Amino acid sequence: MSTTTPQGFRAAGVAAGLKSSGAADVALVVNDGPDDAAAAVFTTNRFPAAPVTWSRQVLSTGRLRAVVLNSGGANACTGADGFADTHATAEHAAAQLGLGAIDVAVASTGLIGVRLPMDRLLPGVTGAAQALSADGGPAAARAIMTTDSVPKTTAVEGAGWTVGGMAKGAGMLAPSLATMLVVLTTDAVVPAELLQPALARATAVSFERVDSDGCLSTNDTVIVMANGASGVTPTAEEFTAALTAACTDLAMQLLADAEGSTKDIAITVRNAATVQDALTAGRACARNNLLKTALFGNDPNWGRVLAAIGTTDAAFEPDRVDVIINGVPVCRGGAIGDPREGVDLTGRTITIDVDLRAGAEQATIWTNDLSIAYVHENSAYST
Amino acid sequence: MSTTTPQGFRAAGVAAGLKSSGAADVALVVNDGPDDAAAAVFTTNRFPAAPVTWSRQVLSTGRLRAVVLNSGGANACTGADGFADTHATAEHAAAQLGLGAIDVAVASTGLIGVRLPMDRLLPGVTGAAQALSADGGPAAARAIMTTDSVPKTTAVEGAGWTVGGMAKGAGMLAPSLATMLVVLTTDAVVPAELLQPALARATAVSFERVDSDGCLSTNDTVIVMANGASGVTPTAEEFTAALTAACTDLAMQLLADAEGSTKDIAITVRNAATVQDALTAGRACARNNLLKTALFGNDPNWGRVLAAIGTTDAAFEPDRVDVIINGVPVCRGGAIGDPREGVDLTGRTITIDVDLRAGAEQATIWTNDLSIAYVHENSAYST
Repeated sequence: MSTTTPQGFRAAGVAAGLKSSGAADVALVVNDGPDDAAAAVFTTNRFPAAPVTWSRQVLSTGRLRAVVLNSGGANACTGADGFADTHATAEHAAAQLGLGAIDVAVASTGLIGVRLPMDRLLPGVTGAAQALSADGGPAAARAIMTTDSVPKTTAVEGAGWTVGGMAKGAGMLAPSLATMLVVLTTDAVVPAELLQPALARATAVSFERVDSDGCLSTNDTVIVMANGASGVTPTAEEFTAALTAACTDLAMQLLADAEGSTKDIAITVRNAATVQDALTAGRACARNNLLKTALFGNDPNWGRVLAAIGTTDAAFEPDRVDVIINGVPVCRGGAIGDPREGVDLTGRTITIDVDLRAGAEQATIWTNDLSIAYVHENSAYST
Repeated sequence: MSTTTPQGFRAAGVAAGLKSSGAADVALVVNDGPDDAAAAVFTTNRFPAAPVTWSRQVLSTGRLRAVVLNSGGANACTGADGFADTHATAEHAAAQLGLGAIDVAVASTGLIGVRLPMDRLLPGVTGAAQALSADGGPAAARAIMTTDSVPKTTAVEGAGWTVGGMAKGAGMLAPSLATMLVVLTTDAVVPAELLQPALARATAVSFERVDSDGCLSTNDTVIVMANGASGVTPTAEEFTAALTAACTDLAMQLLADAEGSTKDIAITVRNAATVQDALTAGRACARNNLLKTALFGNDPNWGRVLAAIGTTDAAFEPDRVDVIINGVPVCRGGAIGDPREGVDLTGRTITIDVDLRAGAEQATIWTNDLSIAYVHENSAYST
């Protein structure tokens, strides 16, 4: 149930002193081959962190042997010096592993705009390399946690091969990736030219549909490595399905652990003219602070659902839109439906179904409520 | 300092029992002429409330004699029945005033998706008509309050003429108008064909640049009536300047009273390629929950400013962007500037200046922080 579940991967997580708490903060995941196919997707933020810039170059080769990750500092908005720090980290990890720097991706998470303490990070990388083991996946998952309350790992079985993975992220989840670092591994035989489209398809319907707080991070990174150690070659469809299942599992774990949240909310927009319309309308709801605070307060305030989708350009006629909250059609034809008192919102899971009656497409966006704990946690993050 | 400051206007505010608190909830503003020029701007939400649909028809004539307003219910998403309620309200007010329904605009504010109690509202309109007086402006301003903690009124003097006004609104302030009802009055001689462009120019740089919580209401209404009672005809420039000053004064009052806010934040984007770029970048900051919670926590987290503008398509080079918070250049060239410890955020007013170094245009967006009180207030609004 981690990055070391597939054959031929080792991992480790150690404490290097980047976190004042003394918790583990440096992780390493190493692919022992035989293949070294790899693919990745990164944040679309125009201020990519130094490790994103570095890893994008590394992954452009379609090959990768190791990922070194740290919590305790994002190394974002740190200029040329910050990039040099990332480069030095990759060089140092490569030297420990007998690789070239071009074989090593780097991922970082933590506060933006602060240099990493390299005098602690590099010894930490050394320690992680020494601690590598075939059951080190869970330790690696713990070392990348920031405000996460639990580590996130997954494994999905194929016919003779496996996909494993880990993720961290508990806020800044949107719009096209969560603030998250994700490493996926597989011992299936998957050439790099099939790996990239599979990853793109898997993330499009998982991480990219989680919109916890509408904020797009500078550090989002999802990397997949395929080493072929199982000797089994799945079809593209089989592999994409397993990778999608792994990504969806991790995405739901991120949602369930979002900073300060008390609700997991699935907003499904049905009968849209296009999938894009469904996503646009769903995202407008997911980012509406008034709706999100209402749901925190167990208030089925469907007027705020309409007010949110009323700001979009999705195709619909206002007097034909229905809203169903936890199964109760509280709004019919853009007007009053069943009594809102009939909606029970006391549980953690909430479903909001919006029927646009404008076509045959649909999509689901997952989000959280906006809680007092979210404000508390994020107002105290760097101070 | 209200809608009755200009000559030839009467107003009233009375309690009709729409609010369970027993506070005033019905207001009337009447133009006694001689002219009846009028103009308005309304919400762009695609679920406009019944009073918006009605008033948009009325104002299409460029003439208006009275506005009847109520708090205690938005009459939004109430279907054909709700529209009939608005129509009946206008008919009833017109009958009390010896006018036609086409002379009477209606504005409502409160919870979406609930019918108005007409058995209380119509007697309230009768009472308001009986209470009309030339110094009733302040009472009218009190009657339209919802979560507002103070009434908002203004007056701006011209050379022999005056602009008066009132506003309500304390949340849902964005993106192109606040959740607000605004009535402006003037005794200047201003024909309707000059009034509409003057109002458009005034709102574009005032209400439309306040983005408190990114939520666009179904009920936003700004109406201006000009009766020419002063006999003085200002130039278009003079009148637009006074109207802009009145709108800006009211907009800043809305900002200062935004639900649960503890900070008034002015985000100025300088040296943008276009005004639109400056507005886009400023609005991205104003809607970033992580930045807004950081400011609530007195944390000058400039990385969240960059992360926000990094999601936009505004023209800039990431390594040339500066961020100055309360006068301290905490970010230079997209990287670390002066120590963040030097920024004092303990006051209510915060200025964030972003220098894009991409052109010569600039714009300011005003917003608030995201506080625990905001969540508390909005999670308990309808329950």
